[in-house]
Amino acid sequence: MPTERVAVAGATGYAGEELIRILLRHPSVRLTSLAASAKWDRPVPLAQVFPRFAGQSDLSVESLDPVRLASSCDIALLALPHGVSLEVVPALLQAGRKVIDLGGDFRLKDPSAFTQWYGTPHTQPALLAEAVYGIAELSRELIAKARLVANPGCYATSVILACAPLLHAGLVERESIVVDAKSGITGAGRKAEPALMFGEMNENLWAYKVNQHQHAPEIEQALLPFGKGQPVSICFVPHVVPLNRGILSTIYLRTPKAVTWEQVRAIYQEAYGQAPFVRVRGQNQWPKIHDVAGSNYCDLGFAVDERKRLLIVSAAIDNLLKGAAGQAVQNLNLMAGWPETAGLL
Amino acid sequence: MPTERVAVAGATGYAGEELIRILLRHPSVRLTSLAASAKWDRPVPLAQVFPRFAGQSDLSVESLDPVRLASSCDIALLALPHGVSLEVVPALLQAGRKVIDLGGDFRLKDPSAFTQWYGTPHTQPALLAEAVYGIAELSRELIAKARLVANPGCYATSVILACAPLLHAGLVERESIVVDAKSGITGAGRKAEPALMFGEMNENLWAYKVNQHQHAPEIEQALLPFGKGQPVSICFVPHVVPLNRGILSTIYLRTPKAVTWEQVRAIYQEAYGQAPFVRVRGQNQWPKIHDVAGSNYCDLGFAVDERKRLLIVSAAIDNLLKGAAGQAVQNLNLMAGWPETAGLL
Amino acid sequence: MPTERVAVAGATGYAGEELIRILLRHPSVRLTSLAASAKWDRPVPLAQVFPRFAGQSDLSVESLDPVRLASSCDIALLALPHGVSLEVVPALLQAGRKVIDLGGDFRLKDPSAFTQWYGTPHTQPALLAEAVYGIAELSRELIAKARLVANPGCYATSVILACAPLLHAGLVERESIVVDAKSGITGAGRKAEPALMFGEMNENLWAYKVNQHQHAPEIEQALLPFGKGQPVSICFVPHVVPLNRGILSTIYLRTPKAVTWEQVRAIYQEAYGQAPFVRVRGQNQWPKIHDVAGSNYCDLGFAVDERKRLLIVSAAIDNLLKGAAGQAVQNLNLMAGWPETAGLL
Amino acid sequence: MPTERVAVAGATGYAGEELIRILLRHPSVRLTSLAASAKWDRPVPLAQVFPRFAGQSDLSVESLDPVRLASSCDIALLALPHGVSLEVVPALLQAGRKVIDLGGDFRLKDPSAFTQWYGTPHTQPALLAEAVYGIAELSRELIAKARLVANPGCYATSVILACAPLLHAGLVERESIVVDAKSGITGAGRKAEPALMFGEMNENLWAYKVNQHQHAPEIEQALLPFGKGQPVSICFVPHVVPLNRGILSTIYLRTPKAVTWEQVRAIYQEAYGQAPFVRVRGQNQWPKIHDVAGSNYCDLGFAVDERKRLLIVSAAIDNLLKGAAGQAVQNLNLMAGWPETAGLL
Repeated sequence: MPTERVAVAGATGYAGEELIRILLRHPSVRLTSLAASAKWDRPVPLAQVFPRFAGQSDLSVESLDPVRLASSCDIALLALPHGVSLEVVPALLQAGRKVIDLGGDFRLKDPSAFTQWYGTPHTQPALLAEAVYGIAELSRELIAKARLVANPGCYATSVILACAPLLHAGLVERESIVVDAKSGITGAGRKAEPALMFGEMNENLWAYKVNQHQHAPEIEQALLPFGKGQPVSICFVPHVVPLNRGILSTIYLRTPKAVTWEQVRAIYQEAYGQAPFVRVRGQNQWPKIHDVAGSNYCDLGFAVDERKRLLIVSAAIDNLLKGAAGQAVQNLNLMAGWPETAGLL
Repeated sequence: MPTERVAVAGATGYAGEELIRILLRHPSVRLTSLAASAKWDRPVPLAQVFPRFAGQSDLSVESLDPVRLASSCDIALLALPHGVSLEVVPALLQAGRKVIDLGGDFRLKDPSAFTQWYGTPHTQPALLAEAVYGIAELSRELIAKARLVANPGCYATSVILACAPLLHAGLVERESIVVDAKSGITGAGRKAEPALMFGEMNENLWAYKVNQHQHAPEIEQALLPFGKGQPVSICFVPHVVPLNRGILSTIYLRTPKAVTWEQVRAIYQEAYGQAPFVRVRGQNQWPKIHDVAGSNYCDLGFAVDERKRLLIVSAAIDNLLKGAAGQAVQNLNLMAGWPETAGLL
Repeated sequence: MPTERVAVAGATGYAGEELIRILLRHPSVRLTSLAASAKWDRPVPLAQVFPRFAGQSDLSVESLDPVRLASSCDIALLALPHGVSLEVVPALLQAGRKVIDLGGDFRLKDPSAFTQWYGTPHTQPALLAEAVYGIAELSRELIAKARLVANPGCYATSVILACAPLLHAGLVERESIVVDAKSGITGAGRKAEPALMFGEMNENLWAYKVNQHQHAPEIEQALLPFGKGQPVSICFVPHVVPLNRGILSTIYLRTPKAVTWEQVRAIYQEAYGQAPFVRVRGQNQWPKIHDVAGSNYCDLGFAVDERKRLLIVSAAIDNLLKGAAGQAVQNLNLMAGWPETAGLL
Repeated sequence: MPTERVAVAGATGYAGEELIRILLRHPSVRLTSLAASAKWDRPVPLAQVFPRFAGQSDLSVESLDPVRLASSCDIALLALPHGVSLEVVPALLQAGRKVIDLGGDFRLKDPSAFTQWYGTPHTQPALLAEAVYGIAELSRELIAKARLVANPGCYATSVILACAPLLHAGLVERESIVVDAKSGITGAGRKAEPALMFGEMNENLWAYKVNQHQHAPEIEQALLPFGKGQPVSICFVPHVVPLNRGILSTIYLRTPKAVTWEQVRAIYQEAYGQAPFVRVRGQNQWPKIHDVAGSNYCDLGFAVDERKRLLIVSAAIDNLLKGAAGQAVQNLNLMAGWPETAGLL
């Protein structure tokens, strides 16, 4: 397999750190440059930023400069703070680079929705239209041909993978979906905020952005093609739980008619039988964070309440891998023509 | 206030430990005896069982003997393994003692439901009929007159307090309730089970007994009087989260008509304005486990989705206090004619 | 017992929060005012700062104003950032108030040592000379008569209580003491620093300020009177461990001659037999954080290696209680003439 | 590189799980069989034992049968409960297999020491004499030629790597070494013991087996060749800390003469400059568990107290990797003639 030069921008955050970890051992990737949005006087050795990488790489992290970034790579992975990708992506594409953006800047297709949820106007509507929403399991071919991939949000990934096949099979009343999602703390990014301190988070647990989280419209948009032409509307309540990594989304859906566990199993089997990173658990078996932590898997478990016509699906991912860096590398593999699982097993 | 002699049976479990902690400093209680269901050759000093109580009490823990227990106290608090209370309660009542049972033996009024959910026949149907289900906020007067109080389950307490006023006000479609509950580990009791080990639980999270937990029928039974003569049916999915103490139940309810946040606030205010241990949070404020840990409070927060006619309520308690030992002492206070908050602030 | 008006300055930190919790239920204290060093436009209700106090107090937290503080109380407890007490204490004393300072401003008797360890000159050398270092177990009478008490550091408390009787008995080679201390995160204060975030601290552990922590000279100074006129020199290595509360200090001391476990036990017994908050464990029993968490106890366990003439002592405290707020209230009790344990059991 | 057939016995414990994870992706290993010491009626699919391996291997775990084990592999890695290896190793060696034993059965060279520390007589003294103690950094050539390697204990690994070069350089007073070690919970193995439950361990911390841990004689024996013919005697105090993985050993050593930081740095550099898995940190930099978690690295940091002639070294490893499975694979690589880092980066 030919190798590609790959750069990571946003190298100092949690997702960036995971990207580096994966890419350093990826068989076809030459990791050529690392950038951070912080303003630094001079490059900082990677081993100084993250002592865990000591002895594994001589790269340094530089302050982000789009031109330098473009010249250093064939494909750029961006894990930047909100809004920064908007400024960097045009230069990269113009220089002929491919881009995978792990942030939210290119996810919501409707510029006005972007403004509503992210609070600023979208300055690149043409690129927004071009960007491919990158869930490999649902859009393999589009991703393979894309210049610009919008890597999905962590919560969104777990919910979309759980719901899309069910919607596609006509098994869901489209206004009934309730998502109760629980996320480890790294999902909030590497920020020194009071609420994210150990003393505040440890032995604690709470709901936040109740029905107000920006992943809700992202999920609704991604599920639209599966809803038989009907928009889907979800109730989305995220919770923060005291663990470092992992998302568990428990999803409650009403079905228009009674279905059996086996019918649902067959629908998932058809959808994901060939997908290397989605696993469906057996009856009365429920995914645990431990099963997916450190991997790119999404594990699904479900139960059927035939009397109430209720489906309960529990989806577990590692928020930094299938929910961020792992999925980005999965997309990178598709874009570069490498095996989908390269560097991820 | 006259004092009462109080005994704790099941003194070596988590709830028993909390009972001891509270009762040792309760102004009107004389803690006179401690028993455990384990078979021990001789009494074990409390300070040996729990070094934290060294210097605070000279009591020892003895193997459970109903006759000795009855002779040692005026009121007995039982925090025993499933089924043991069934054998102990008759002797205590016959000896003229009052009993608060923290286990599940006297909670489900229908003996056949008991058998269905707990797996054994109920041997004391008459006492089952007599037992008062002890949520002080909803049954103060019955509790005050009871000989035998069935102290509610931890999950059940959080859900019943959140839902009862809403049902009473006619705000809930009675088949719509979905409860996504998250509990700290002590809720599973002090048992050396593989799944409860630190190495398994830490950095982990999962759903269990999905739609199959014994607190579901307990909740449905307790809510029955509030449902305008109509039974309530809930979907109940508990999760285990890596923290020691605390339950956060997030509850999703459909309303038959659109309601406002203020209307719901007024309903809770009417129900709990005088209740010393239920607090309702303001708009966009959500209860955290830290707010209730170590206390007997139940904190409620909620949001209204008028468009979808959806109510989202989040209820937080300390599972060992308002969910067990604290609520038991609250009931004890009512039964003994002491202030409801004695020993609990 | 006559009540006293008590104020807490530094009410928004961890120690302040604990002071409030204790003082609200202290039988002889009227908590009259709360202040914070932050600059706020207007007072913030306590229940807003800490939702856990909702329903328990109508107090608000105000920006710190020494004159207003002095007028509001008879005794002030200060849990302020480094250096702030230096500015506040003179006004309080001048107004005739008593002061307990939980910070480090009045602990090191030598102004030049203060400058060396805290980086700024000491502006109140006369008050420094007057301040009584407040370990009740060692200086009950001085504390009872003091106007100004310097409440000891958390690490220091655990080490001093473990070492003082041994030194006094001549059992320690005075250059041999090695302290390996482990502290929960709240010891670092409520600060949004990157290293204190949950994502960084959870599943992590490290040594810091190795042989460079400001509690080392504090310990050496406090142990001086017990060293037979000879100064003591310690090697002090603190570690941060992923738990909220608690300090465990393991202390290694060489003895000039062989001693037995029983001899050491007798020395501790003589020193602490009457002390309500120091407990000594039996042979092969070692203190755990759980034994002291939430209490004002200091638990000591020890082993003797007669061959190597080595003593190993393990001391456990709750860093926010015996290591801060609890010890402050113990000192308050002595200063006000109340029972030493008032409000602390 | 030629591949080898490798078997893992003790596949259901923490170390076994890590061995499987590493070996499944090792470029030269064919993982051919998995065994557990439990008595099972029939093989259990690996994905059922550990859902995380679903989709990654079709192997099943069988009850341990030495003959079957020998026939299935060229090299066997044993991560078995104490005493079981004693029964299995002879059959494996007789069948011409190589063996790496991760347990303690072949570590202590003196059979009477084995009896003293492990409580049973050693039944294979000849094999005990033959076994090579497998710290690759210190015994590369012996390991490469060994039939039977005793993989070091987790604590022992961290202490030996920190101390051996210092002893070799004559920098240590041989009776002065104090080791204060802190370990995550997986170090205790996957056992459902009361003290290892989440509710007991979380927010807790304690010393155990003070000066009585079986790794102390193991360390003393391993350091013997470095002590200029003089035996070394250590004081070893392990602590359990609430994290899943990682050991941090802080080691206090007296030096016979004053040394500088740079001198010590040079000694470590000479010892480990070519070692791929030992990293030495810069001045005032201290290893964190996060730096080594999930890797086979041992990170060392140190400080020098010239006045007291005291060296303080802090060593961090992942107890399941460099402390168990990673080091075993490092030894496997040497025994099979593969690159030392194969499968470990």
